[in-house]
Amino acid sequence: QIDSARLWGSIHETAQFGATAKGGVRRLTLSSEDKQVRDWFRKACEDAGLEVHTDALGSQFGLRKGRDMSKLPVGIGSHLDTQPTGGKYDGILGTLGALEVIRTLNDAGIETEAPICIVNWTNEEGSRFAPAMMASAAYVGDFTTDDILSRKDIVGTTVGQALDSIGYRGDKPVGFQKLGCFVELHIEQGPILEAEGKTIGVVDSGQGVLWYDGKISGFESHAGSTPMPLRRDALATLSEIVLAMEAIAKKHGPNAVGTIGEAVIANPSRNVIPGEIAFTMDCRSADGAIMDALDRDLRAAIAEIAARRKVEVKIDLVWRKAPTHFDPKLIAAVENAAKTLGYSSRRITSGAGHDACNLNTVMPAAMVFVPCKDGISHNELEDAAQPDCAAGTNVLMHTVLAIAGV
Amino acid sequence: QIDSARLWGSIHETAQFGATAKGGVRRLTLSSEDKQVRDWFRKACEDAGLEVHTDALGSQFGLRKGRDMSKLPVGIGSHLDTQPTGGKYDGILGTLGALEVIRTLNDAGIETEAPICIVNWTNEEGSRFAPAMMASAAYVGDFTTDDILSRKDIVGTTVGQALDSIGYRGDKPVGFQKLGCFVELHIEQGPILEAEGKTIGVVDSGQGVLWYDGKISGFESHAGSTPMPLRRDALATLSEIVLAMEAIAKKHGPNAVGTIGEAVIANPSRNVIPGEIAFTMDCRSADGAIMDALDRDLRAAIAEIAARRKVEVKIDLVWRKAPTHFDPKLIAAVENAAKTLGYSSRRITSGAGHDACNLNTVMPAAMVFVPCKDGISHNELEDAAQPDCAAGTNVLMHTVLAIAGV
Ligand SMILES: NC(=O)NCCC(=O)O
Ligand SMILES: NC(=O)NCCC(=O)O
Repeated sequence: QIDSARLWGSIHETAQFGATAKGGVRRLTLSSEDKQVRDWFRKACEDAGLEVHTDALGSQFGLRKGRDMSKLPVGIGSHLDTQPTGGKYDGILGTLGALEVIRTLNDAGIETEAPICIVNWTNEEGSRFAPAMMASAAYVGDFTTDDILSRKDIVGTTVGQALDSIGYRGDKPVGFQKLGCFVELHIEQGPILEAEGKTIGVVDSGQGVLWYDGKISGFESHAGSTPMPLRRDALATLSEIVLAMEAIAKKHGPNAVGTIGEAVIANPSRNVIPGEIAFTMDCRSADGAIMDALDRDLRAAIAEIAARRKVEVKIDLVWRKAPTHFDPKLIAAVENAAKTLGYSSRRITSGAGHDACNLNTVMPAAMVFVPCKDGISHNELEDAAQPDCAAGTNVLMHTVLAIAGV
Repeated sequence: QIDSARLWGSIHETAQFGATAKGGVRRLTLSSEDKQVRDWFRKACEDAGLEVHTDALGSQFGLRKGRDMSKLPVGIGSHLDTQPTGGKYDGILGTLGALEVIRTLNDAGIETEAPICIVNWTNEEGSRFAPAMMASAAYVGDFTTDDILSRKDIVGTTVGQALDSIGYRGDKPVGFQKLGCFVELHIEQGPILEAEGKTIGVVDSGQGVLWYDGKISGFESHAGSTPMPLRRDALATLSEIVLAMEAIAKKHGPNAVGTIGEAVIANPSRNVIPGEIAFTMDCRSADGAIMDALDRDLRAAIAEIAARRKVEVKIDLVWRKAPTHFDPKLIAAVENAAKTLGYSSRRITSGAGHDACNLNTVMPAAMVFVPCKDGISHNELEDAAQPDCAAGTNVLMHTVLAIAGV
């Protein structure tokens, strides 16, 4: 059994790095707050006797030796960055839970056959730089390191510059640390476990993701003297797109969602009809065929709206992540650990993307979910119960022990 | 006849203060570019022999003596501030046209019976500080000077601080310069004169304006894991409001417009459902009953949308300007001047608000419109023909001479 109080202490101690007035955390990737938590994490890993390295994209790896160093390590961990108005658990539970597993094994003097490697992946959230789960995507070869290093945030800072500014461009090439498999603990970020009174979600699959950048070019014009029929209003155009996306996602049933999270009017003024808007779109489904249908329907709707309103709408697909089907053996290992420990559980699909989804494309991977309050995440009010966090960490530890061998 | 080349030269010389790459002007009120054009204008007024004063809200007054100084001056002028992506003529033609009238009378050695006062009103545009036509509103007593001085821009700078930062908080109290009447020359900012091939618009009325500040409070939540039916999406709410306003304005016929010019998502992120949006609304009609109907319909629509989407929408009416009916005698004087000079003309309603609309509430006022290209304004592409600008300035001069007496 892990030390629930110690885990809880770590979560709340690190929540000070970027703490918000409403009890959440604002710790954008590669920000000064992110540097603080990274420094804390490195020291905690070193104190736990791990060999710590940082790769060229800033991901942190802490290695615990196994008896058989010819075996590939079992990877566990998650991320320590948050949304602009994020919570204390999303990513953090999985990373500090992994640390807690190491501390518990150390205290109990347990040596494993295979080594264990705990990881803090850079920019899982994707708020500052696209795509989300950026570093793990580079790790599995979806993008080159140079491509990722050149990605820019909204003020034009590149990933490379941001890494240098906090001193976290590591000396190890991306992929230097080979892993045999990866298991990630996370809060569910949805309402199902709580509603059904289950403690553990055995994650068997994950939604695919489509991310787009969009730009609407209408025509700026005087709010008072431009008759309604002559307008080419970029905001009215965006409004139709927002509602069309909502309708399309609903049409494709419970297994689809669509969101416009960012929309910025260029040079806004109260008495000027908006002429230009940059926006983003996020569409998801666990079913690849539905993802294709979402893309098709959305493009058709946007083309019709743009033509009718005589405005130009450009859409760039900047990221496509296929649905995830986790490794059956690892899924069984998670399920078995929950059962052995006496926790109630159910199979579940992840609505959110996770680094484990990337890793699953090149190695066996799986995930452990625990409930979060009202299913709320990406919100400062995000909350999770201490016993559930401890339960998830215990399941993680027992899964690791089963895979790594004692 | 005024000097068309000199007028054109002044317009293009001052267009350098805040010139944009696309040929427009960005000269927000009380900005450093506004200081530049104010300095230029003060010097030009002094060079033309005017007695120049600045009032407590930064409006500039240049007085040309008349034979009978017991008579109240005839006021002419407009504004030199622009929209964030504004043009070279909106306000500028009326202010530099007034200067050109003075220069022409000086050159011709014409003395008038009543004095003439040319004015550059502070913050006509209303982009940086609300309301528009701020200084002339204070002049006529719609707001106290202190109230206006405390208004804030988007970064929290007050009008008072902005005035001090460019050294234009004048030593004269607002209203120090009494005026007997006011005539304002302006580009039409709409398509009618051009479409009908008329040179002069004799403005007999102006639309009333409703300005609102709005705030939507929904709930931030994860874009991937929050099912569509559980969302309280602030952007989807805004989208319905935008389209409802469009439909309501159209329903009330050609004599109504409605615009949402500003909308800012708080803490935007691609994979977060927008939780909070601040926005503005601008509704207009030349008919007071229609203004009331717009207000009623809009509030009802917003209440229905907010209740259905389970979000909170707060609406504050921050400005209500009643429709304007200009002074019949002054309208006739403008019409007569156009006729005498041989210009084609038509009566017209102003779609935009103007300082003359404020002044009309306490003194006789009127306006002269000239065509602008494709009716485009509040756009960097705003354009007007030199002969039309000269024609309008001639009509302004002959109207002034008729009122002031030679
Ligand atoms: N787990 C999580 O919130 N990931 C962020 C990436 C995404 O799913 O949008
Ligand atoms: N003339 C003009 O564009 N005024 C700005 C104020 C407004 O009408 O919105």
